[in-house]
Amino acid sequence: MKPPLRVPVPTLTEGRLELDAATSRYVARVHRLEAGATISLFSAGFEASATITRACADAVEVDVGPRRAAAPPRDVTLVQALGKADKFDAVVRDATELGATRVVPVMTARTIPRLGDRADARLARWRAIALDATRQCGRASAPEICALEPLSTALARHAAVRVMLTPGAPSPLAPLLLGDASLLIAVGPEGGFTPEELTDAGARGVTLARLGATVLRTETVAAAALGAALVLGEASSALPSSPD
Amino acid sequence: MKPPLRVPVPTLTEGRLELDAATSRYVARVHRLEAGATISLFSAGFEASATITRACADAVEVDVGPRRAAAPPRDVTLVQALGKADKFDAVVRDATELGATRVVPVMTARTIPRLGDRADARLARWRAIALDATRQCGRASAPEICALEPLSTALARHAAVRVMLTPGAPSPLAPLLLGDASLLIAVGPEGGFTPEELTDAGARGVTLARLGATVLRTETVAAAALGAALVLGEASSALPSSPD
Repeated sequence: MKPPLRVPVPTLTEGRLELDAATSRYVARVHRLEAGATISLFSAGFEASATITRACADAVEVDVGPRRAAAPPRDVTLVQALGKADKFDAVVRDATELGATRVVPVMTARTIPRLGDRADARLARWRAIALDATRQCGRASAPEICALEPLSTALARHAAVRVMLTPGAPSPLAPLLLGDASLLIAVGPEGGFTPEELTDAGARGVTLARLGATVLRTETVAAAALGAALVLGEASSALPSSPD
Repeated sequence: MKPPLRVPVPTLTEGRLELDAATSRYVARVHRLEAGATISLFSAGFEASATITRACADAVEVDVGPRRAAAPPRDVTLVQALGKADKFDAVVRDATELGATRVVPVMTARTIPRLGDRADARLARWRAIALDATRQCGRASAPEICALEPLSTALARHAAVRVMLTPGAPSPLAPLLLGDASLLIAVGPEGGFTPEELTDAGARGVTLARLGATVLRTETVAAAALGAALVLGEASSALPSSPD
């Protein structure tokens, strides 16, 4: 059976609700749904089934059922080496939009910025960016932005699947991202992880994997890997014979 | 059988080659490969098998076999609505790194910038960014950056799978990205596609799909979707019972 259309709404309460004009057109004209059809509404961490009671071209009215907490998203930890300048700001914003549960900034051998006494200010800034992105993208709650850690500490965090991305590694990423098991993805700085860091990660049971065949900028890796995790995690049941 | 380790090299010619110190450590210490082992070397559109002839901790020497053109990457067209300010610059850079074959900037109903007589200058700028990113990431050749088109023209381009991303659509993205068929992904502007544009795309046989459950910024969508396409396309054979 086709899953119901999912429609974002500003606030979600049980009972009668008139959708705004753009959303109404989307429901009634794009998807040609009529009175009696069921859709799914969602808003900041909650969702509800709703039955269409009137479906005019730009004024759709629905009867909203009891709301429930949305399924908790997959637990995804992004471990990311600090980058130059504002790169980490972009990483925090992307990771928030793309559903990371927490972001752990790490120092690595090739990490250039030394935060020193700016560490607290930077952390506060990243948390503000995460809050702002949370509101804009309609996430239920903001990701945890952790204080700077050594790489080895971050890699020891618990996750069912732990992956370190490095160009040319024999393992492709897709099989590691399937399903809904908790996931840790480690992304290196400009210049990558050192051979020693890769060896150490391997010894700790972290899988070395590649993302494509080129060498990506560190901030592109985060968005691409989290996007892939989101797509593969969300749709495992839609893939042929996937293991879940 | 485990696929061979893939190692990027600056230039690739048949015969004896000494890997640089960092690459050597990666091969000999991280992956503990020894004399006699086979690895795969790649560089700008070419690849070759190589046999390790000496494996010291920081000086690995290999015997490179005949080089061949690397398998052509999947044909991926990114159709993207123009965004404000420098957003499209970031999109071009990300798309280049993430393997897009071509990028088609489009005007849509909610696209704000009107390029007017700056169109040529902007196009030249995007092509320069693509060339620069091509060199940095080690792609074989730069993506085609097309001149601005109307959305309907861009959607009529040939691709085996054509997808328009819009929040809340019932179809998840993963099943559409599997395999190596040519792919067209359309990404809307701030504010999204209009109901009319979505209806029209559907009528043209384009599948409406969602990427996650939140509302992403337009430049995040491109990186996340292309990352997912790269991961799913590259590894379809590694997924359980995938259709290829």
